[in-house]
Amino acid sequence: MHSMPADLLSAVVTILAILLYFYMSVRVGQMRHKHGVKAPAMTGHPEFERAFRVHYNTLESLVVFLPLLWLSTIYFTPAFYTLAWLPAALGLAWIVGRILYMTGYMADPDKRGTGFGIASLAELLLLILAIAGIVRFSMAITV
Amino acid sequence: MHSMPADLLSAVVTILAILLYFYMSVRVGQMRHKHGVKAPAMTGHPEFERAFRVHYNTLESLVVFLPLLWLSTIYFTPAFYTLAWLPAALGLAWIVGRILYMTGYMADPDKRGTGFGIASLAELLLLILAIAGIVRFSMAITV
Amino acid sequence: MHSMPADLLSAVVTILAILLYFYMSVRVGQMRHKHGVKAPAMTGHPEFERAFRVHYNTLESLVVFLPLLWLSTIYFTPAFYTLAWLPAALGLAWIVGRILYMTGYMADPDKRGTGFGIASLAELLLLILAIAGIVRFSMAITV
Repeated sequence: MHSMPADLLSAVVTILAILLYFYMSVRVGQMRHKHGVKAPAMTGHPEFERAFRVHYNTLESLVVFLPLLWLSTIYFTPAFYTLAWLPAALGLAWIVGRILYMTGYMADPDKRGTGFGIASLAELLLLILAIAGIVRFSMAITV
Repeated sequence: MHSMPADLLSAVVTILAILLYFYMSVRVGQMRHKHGVKAPAMTGHPEFERAFRVHYNTLESLVVFLPLLWLSTIYFTPAFYTLAWLPAALGLAWIVGRILYMTGYMADPDKRGTGFGIASLAELLLLILAIAGIVRFSMAITV
Repeated sequence: MHSMPADLLSAVVTILAILLYFYMSVRVGQMRHKHGVKAPAMTGHPEFERAFRVHYNTLESLVVFLPLLWLSTIYFTPAFYTLAWLPAALGLAWIVGRILYMTGYMADPDKRGTGFGIASLAELLLLILAIAGIVRFSMAITV
């Protein structure tokens, strides 16, 4: 796997993140059915509401995770090529965090903290990589 | 149109999907006004709630549709160039499915199934194309 | 800064937009805590609900803003290179609009119009640039 270019690794991570997200949305539909919460209602049973919030909170996060993953892949890895695996590794950490968030939240909303923290930390590190890559590219041009 | 590169076709599909999404968001605003649902309320009248759910369900889907469309365009089409039109065609199918979803849901929440199914199938096929393309690229590198 | 390529400018704008979005999501968590709105509830106090809607309305917008920003950057700037700064400038206008939207909405939901209008106008102009760029590329191929 270490011989794979960074963009392919990030493509694989993107697919895995989307699969997890699909699974979460299917769970919302199952909970809607199980507890008889008729569309368009978004409330009605705690278990449905938790599944709904897991899905939506992951949606909130996905829309910045994917741009950060790809900005890191495009701008960080060419400049720091010995660390080319790092964006994809942080992407995997985000996915693991989101799985823990899901299982924790479904068990008890108060147990959503650990997974949320791991995923948020992964996002923050991807943000730092993206900024480092953009700064490095900018310096290469203006110098 | 068959002479257009796959990325331009996918760019056109992206624009069309965004136009449909804009239309849905305008409808939410109109329904909010029509039924006097004051912000920040998200409930208050069935027709407003249906328009709101149409918009948000399409949002949920758009955030994976666009990445899958572009992963397919980037990784599938160079490897399977006689099928270079396929990602954009599936993108159009997604848009048609989403239009049927909107019109069905607004008429009756129980009629949202057909459009949802078409759009979901298009996403699933784009997922398969993206995976096929990524696998093909990976094999070309490791062999 | 005028010597920076359009893609780096758009990368910087993407980072700034994501930072604003992060800030909005942190505010939702703070308001949830401040007013004792326990997860998974999404209602319970007007200030929490306003912060929630600011975040989600920006999410709704972000998922089309970023694709439009990058379609403009990829297709418009190579064809109209003297205006290569324009997509990033419109991206900054979107960010300013979204900041005004946030501050206006938190003060009073009726004051969200100005910022929303600026951000929407920026999106509309990015849409026009993207279409112009795609049309120009298509003509260059088919002629």
